[in-house]
Parts: sequence; C-alpha cells; structure tokens
Amino acid sequence: MSEPTDDPIRGAVRQLRRLPGIGEKTATRLVYWMLRAPDGTVPAIAEALSRLSSEVRTCGTCGNLTAQDPCGLCADGRRDPSMICVVEHPQDVLAFERSGEFRGRYHVLHGAISPLDGVGPADLNLRTLLDRLRDGTVTEVIVATDPDIEGDATALYLARLLGDVGVKVTRLAHGISVGTEIEYADAVSLSRALQNRQLMR
Amino acid sequence: MSEPTDDPIRGAVRQLRRLPGIGEKTATRLVYWMLRAPDGTVPAIAEALSRLSSEVRTCGTCGNLTAQDPCGLCADGRRDPSMICVVEHPQDVLAFERSGEFRGRYHVLHGAISPLDGVGPADLNLRTLLDRLRDGTVTEVIVATDPDIEGDATALYLARLLGDVGVKVTRLAHGISVGTEIEYADAVSLSRALQNRQLMR
Repeated sequence: MSEPTDDPIRGAVRQLRRLPGIGEKTATRLVYWMLRAPDGTVPAIAEALSRLSSEVRTCGTCGNLTAQDPCGLCADGRRDPSMICVVEHPQDVLAFERSGEFRGRYHVLHGAISPLDGVGPADLNLRTLLDRLRDGTVTEVIVATDPDIEGDATALYLARLLGDVGVKVTRLAHGISVGTEIEYADAVSLSRALQNRQLMR
Repeated sequence: MSEPTDDPIRGAVRQLRRLPGIGEKTATRLVYWMLRAPDGTVPAIAEALSRLSSEVRTCGTCGNLTAQDPCGLCADGRRDPSMICVVEHPQDVLAFERSGEFRGRYHVLHGAISPLDGVGPADLNLRTLLDRLRDGTVTEVIVATDPDIEGDATALYLARLLGDVGVKVTRLAHGISVGTEIEYADAVSLSRALQNRQLMR
C-alpha cells in the first residue's frame, strides 16, 4: 500500500498493539469498531486515557494510585485507623474493596521481594509504612502479599521488620478457595489448607 | 470507596469497557498496565485514538477509510484501473493487500444487503461505483462479498445491476480453504468446493 507512514488507522493499530494481550488482529478489530462507533465515543475513550497519565499520582500516605493526595481511602475518617492491610499492587486494593470485608487502611508496596528480578526491600514502598506505624495508632498489620515465592519472601521480611516495631503482624489465610471441589484443588493450596486447618469445636 | 465519581482510573476502566470483547477485568488489567507503562506510552495511545476520529474520512472514490481523499490506493497510478474488487468492509481491503495478489482498485460498500437488518441497496455505497464504471476504463468487477446469506444476496444484486452496464462481473471462488483437511472441512465449504470443481487436464 502506498498510504503515508503516518496513516492514522495504521498508527492506531500500532499503538493498541502495545497493550498486553492485544495483537495485530485484535488491534485492527478494535480500530475498525472505533471508526464505526457513534460520534463522541472515541474522543471520550482517548480523553479518559489522557487523564490517566496526567491526573493519576501516588498517594503519599498509602502508595495507592489516585487522583487526589491523600487518596479517598486514606482521607475516609470512617475507616478503622488501627489496621493496615499491606498489598503488592493497587489492583489488590480494588479486590479487597470488592469483597467489602475490610474496613481498615491499606498500604501498597508496588512489588514484592524478588532477588531473581533484582527487586530488594529498598525497591518497595516501605519507608512510609514505617512512618505510619510511628505514632502507635496502628495495632495490626495484615500482610496480603500473593501466595507465591516473592509474596512469601516479602511476608517473612515484613514480619521480621515490623516485629521490631512492636505491632501485631498477621497474614491472610491460604487454603482451598471457596467453590473449589477438593478433587480439583491444586496440590499447593491443598497442602496449605492442611497446614492452616482450623479447630471446629 | 469514597473516591469521587470522576476518578480517572475508574473512568478509564468504564471507557475501555465500551470496546467489543473487553469486559471489566480486561479493562482493569489494561488500565493498570497503562499506569505502570513508561512515560509517553499512554499519551501516544490516546493521541492515536484522537487522530482516528479527527482525521479519518471516507475516500470519495472507493469509499475506503483514509486520511486523504482520494485514498492512497485510488491515487496510486501503478495499480490496474481496469479491475475493481468490491468488498463489504474496509478491513477486507487490508486482507487483500496482505495477500499481495490483487493489483487493481477497490470499492467498499460499507455493508451488505440484509432485509432482516433493514439494509437495502440504497444503504450501500453503490452510486459512486456506477460513476466509476461510466467512462469504460473498468472492464471487470470482482465481487468479493462474504460467503454468507447477505454477501450472496449482495453479489446477486451486483451481478444484475452491473450486467446492465456491460461490464464483466466475477465472484471470488469459494471452496475449502488452503490448509484445511477435508476431514475437518465444514459441509457448506465442501459443497461449494464440489460445485466449483476445476478441470485438471
């Protein structure tokens, strides 16, 4: 084709292909969908993406991604200030909020300790966590890192670090997930479920 | 959560969910990927989408979507002006260009006749096709509509309409696709392949 190299259709396909899980075919399908979409649809999408990079920053308190600092969760006086749930990623906060079970505060590490990837404790958002524990308001830190090697290493590191501060450190229970039949449970979850078995009466 | 309703993260998730095949989970994954992406990535994507709605228009000659009118394919003097390949959608032009087999011109109908959806001949980009046939340069029109009910109806309509103009009208061969083993070929393709069988010697 003798289209110029700055052809907007091909440019949009090329840009969408940068997204994870989106290849040439999906990007092309999305672009042609956009070209047929009602007026205003695509500008609204483009505007929403622009705002992501211009308005979203890190909350200086908990490290969550937010448009305001402190974020809505840190600024919400109705939340229990005595408990902090420590997670690896901002998405994990969303998952907890969906469950509606936790009414305390959060702290986002932005990663987990992974020597293989060159990520050590200094690369995590830990300094502000220690600052938050200084005045004694927080009595329990719930470690909600992922149940994998990096998450386990991070949990152990946090337990040692925060034990020195004198705060109670707990970790999420791991076991077979609700809805999983034992027959189909993976071996690691099943062995965790056995280790963490609860006394019934 | 007490985030304001115009929270840019949730706004971006909501906008991306409008795209076909993208649900809440995928949209959230894409947004958090964008929030971690290197500087300039997301503005470049947003800019490419903005250009789609501001710069892309319909070629006044062939009806293809393009940033320039006439489009690069219509303006390319090296392409054979005696053949026009009629397709339903702009994406079909891309598919032909990928194959590299066709060196003539295109005409995009932007749809196919479908009484059930209320799409008749008047809704297709046909008037400019007749204009293009007027000076006698075009000697063959290849109908490349999809091999489905709507595409077949459109092909039959075109054959009758263009037969009156005195131009040769052909249609793409349908049969089993290259790479398909006969064992797994669908019944309709196999029956088309039988009907369209070629004499070998």
